Amino acid sequence: MKINNLRSLLIHELQDIYDAEHRIHKELESMEKSAHANDVKELFKSHREETQGQIERLEKTFELLGEKAQRTTCEATKGLIEEAKELLSEIEDDATSDAALIAAAQKVEHYEIASYGTVAAWAHILDQDQCSRLLNQTLEEEKSADKKLMHAASKLNLVAL
Amino acid sequence: MKINNLRSLLIHELQDIYDAEHRIHKELESMEKSAHANDVKELFKSHREETQGQIERLEKTFELLGEKAQRTTCEATKGLIEEAKELLSEIEDDATSDAALIAAAQKVEHYEIASYGTVAAWAHILDQDQCSRLLNQTLEEEKSADKKLMHAASKLNLVAL
Repeated sequence: MKINNLRSLLIHELQDIYDAEHRIHKELESMEKSAHANDVKELFKSHREETQGQIERLEKTFELLGEKAQRTTCEATKGLIEEAKELLSEIEDDATSDAALIAAAQKVEHYEIASYGTVAAWAHILDQDQCSRLLNQTLEEEKSADKKLMHAASKLNLVAL
Repeated sequence: MKINNLRSLLIHELQDIYDAEHRIHKELESMEKSAHANDVKELFKSHREETQGQIERLEKTFELLGEKAQRTTCEATKGLIEEAKELLSEIEDDATSDAALIAAAQKVEHYEIASYGTVAAWAHILDQDQCSRLLNQTLEEEKSADKKLMHAASKLNLVAL
């Protein structure tokens, strides 16, 4: 795909985050299984449901732009997931493992915060305000998910001492 | 390395971000060369200098913890850099290329914000308050770098229309 203006760059970035969301949706299921504390499990479960809604919001965004929803491999999310898996395989106790899981999830949230912040701004500049609103809605959800993870971490880290 | 408590997890995460900072330091040089607008070039140049200080702060942190400063491959940063390079190779015009460079840099900043937020919190819980202060200092720099990038993007994106 030729990228030679902000619109084509926006489409590319939407395809990237669309791929990322699918990978994250899948990964949250195994994170829920790997988590030991019930509230951490619950957090991953509810964020998985939220992620499904975010995927649908991206499909709506593609539709509004008159584009087909399609994925382009998000190398960054692949790297984030790979790194988390490697780390978890080296951890020997439950509370430390949960602390690492939360840290990994916060990195994923921050990838999404950066990406949605960018695409929402680009959509606004391109006068695609309905798209921009949808993307900002997800952006706020990701920021809130990051805060919930931070709160869960602050309770958990004392156990991992 | 065995990871079985919060201290060993902290050391591992510090090794990860220490590796990330070295990769970013190197990458910022080519980002400066790739950028077209002078203020974007300048942003990457000054953040590269700042990154050198952040590397030194991490070395001081390792020293305070009685550990050798060493790197462990940061797959996430590798993925972020790979993704940015792939994207830039597909872009055909200068302003769009600069917009993509800034978006990529913001993703890197957000990786660092998540990571430093985590290690600063862990160091605090482990009563390593001097380390925590150093890590929080870098965290604030990364947040400020993200804001500067956002500001540069808002001026630039109109040119890429």
